[in-house]
Amino acid sequence: MDLILPKVRDTLLFAGAIVEAKIAYQSLFFLTYMNLFKGEIALTNNIVWHETTIKKEERQERNGHKSAILWFTGLSGAGKSTLANALEQQLFQQGKTSYVLDGDNVRHGLNKGLGFSDEDRKENIRRIGEVAKLFVDAGTIVCTAFISPFKEDRNRVRELVEEGEFIEVYVRCSLEACEQRDPKGLYKKARSGEIPEFTGISSPYEEPNAAEIIVDSDKQTVEESVQAILDYLKDNNII
Amino acid sequence: MDLILPKVRDTLLFAGAIVEAKIAYQSLFFLTYMNLFKGEIALTNNIVWHETTIKKEERQERNGHKSAILWFTGLSGAGKSTLANALEQQLFQQGKTSYVLDGDNVRHGLNKGLGFSDEDRKENIRRIGEVAKLFVDAGTIVCTAFISPFKEDRNRVRELVEEGEFIEVYVRCSLEACEQRDPKGLYKKARSGEIPEFTGISSPYEEPNAAEIIVDSDKQTVEESVQAILDYLKDNNII
Repeated sequence: MDLILPKVRDTLLFAGAIVEAKIAYQSLFFLTYMNLFKGEIALTNNIVWHETTIKKEERQERNGHKSAILWFTGLSGAGKSTLANALEQQLFQQGKTSYVLDGDNVRHGLNKGLGFSDEDRKENIRRIGEVAKLFVDAGTIVCTAFISPFKEDRNRVRELVEEGEFIEVYVRCSLEACEQRDPKGLYKKARSGEIPEFTGISSPYEEPNAAEIIVDSDKQTVEESVQAILDYLKDNNII
Repeated sequence: MDLILPKVRDTLLFAGAIVEAKIAYQSLFFLTYMNLFKGEIALTNNIVWHETTIKKEERQERNGHKSAILWFTGLSGAGKSTLANALEQQLFQQGKTSYVLDGDNVRHGLNKGLGFSDEDRKENIRRIGEVAKLFVDAGTIVCTAFISPFKEDRNRVRELVEEGEFIEVYVRCSLEACEQRDPKGLYKKARSGEIPEFTGISSPYEEPNAAEIIVDSDKQTVEESVQAILDYLKDNNII
């Protein structure tokens, strides 16, 4: 008996280990199955719910074009918002699914309460990036028009999405031309010190060093600029 | 002269006032024109840029349906996300433009860093509301699936959009059924005290008192629930 009992115990332990491994394997298989195939979930004993999520690729296929972020960056007054809206006008007329995020619909909404501290500026761009990512996931070509002066912030957004989904559009324009335009009177206020840390005056603008598209808004017309962007989108099989 | 000069002065002052009034009137007209007709903006002397924004109504017209927020609310485990995704599956198959916002795409993105304090919970719902509003503006039927236990937070989102654009879907399910399902093991953790302030256990859930749609997820199948929501959308000329 002294010899047999340990043997039985070992056998039982070994059998137990096999059962546990099998359960673990099946759980793993189940989780994989859940994630890959979005199968059935039994929420109660008598109701079976199917969990299905429409994938980005399905949306893109139905829209007939890929989705991406067109990230317009440049000085205040360079024409980012105007250009983004002019582009969207064309995309809309061509039947594409598109949207523009700019100060008009973000500043007093999602980013309400954010100020001009370094922390807040970062958070401002981060949130816009995250929302743009959601629009990309929804199958939309989303144009964002914000100064976004810091490389680091822009690159962080680039890393949020897949390769090729972040298209940086540098709306280049001399400070002189922007200040001459001064469509919102902000440069005047910045010069008088009424606005502290104003990009180009009292705060730096970091030029992109590898923007996918560069537009010279003090030399090109809007039509020319929009055409250049549309050409890029076609050449890169986005539209 | 003593009589004539004051008269001339008065006349000049009067003429000046007329000119000022005319300028003010024209400025007002110009501003109205700008807002209503989105006219031309001369950014530099030689380039005229057209500012045009695609309006929500234009997007809705092209999509062939209105846009709205379907705000799914209810206890953890009630089936909000499952139901939202099942509905979207149907909307997508019917060719509608739709999207789902839920924990999967919001928690670790836009709302990263937010905790469970009262302040953070409010901000969590506020941001989701603002993003949902952007999707409505983009012409999308957007389904949101978050517990959103407080009336005040939900009503604040309702006020963000136009009348009829916020459709509250109460996914009603007894605490017992939710706790029995416990798909993420959260109730277990809440009971053991591992999760503090868990809705239904240690934190209240405020039932909607005028939800547009009520679904009893412990009695109705997903198919029945989805059909009820589709019927509502048809009856109210959303789709």
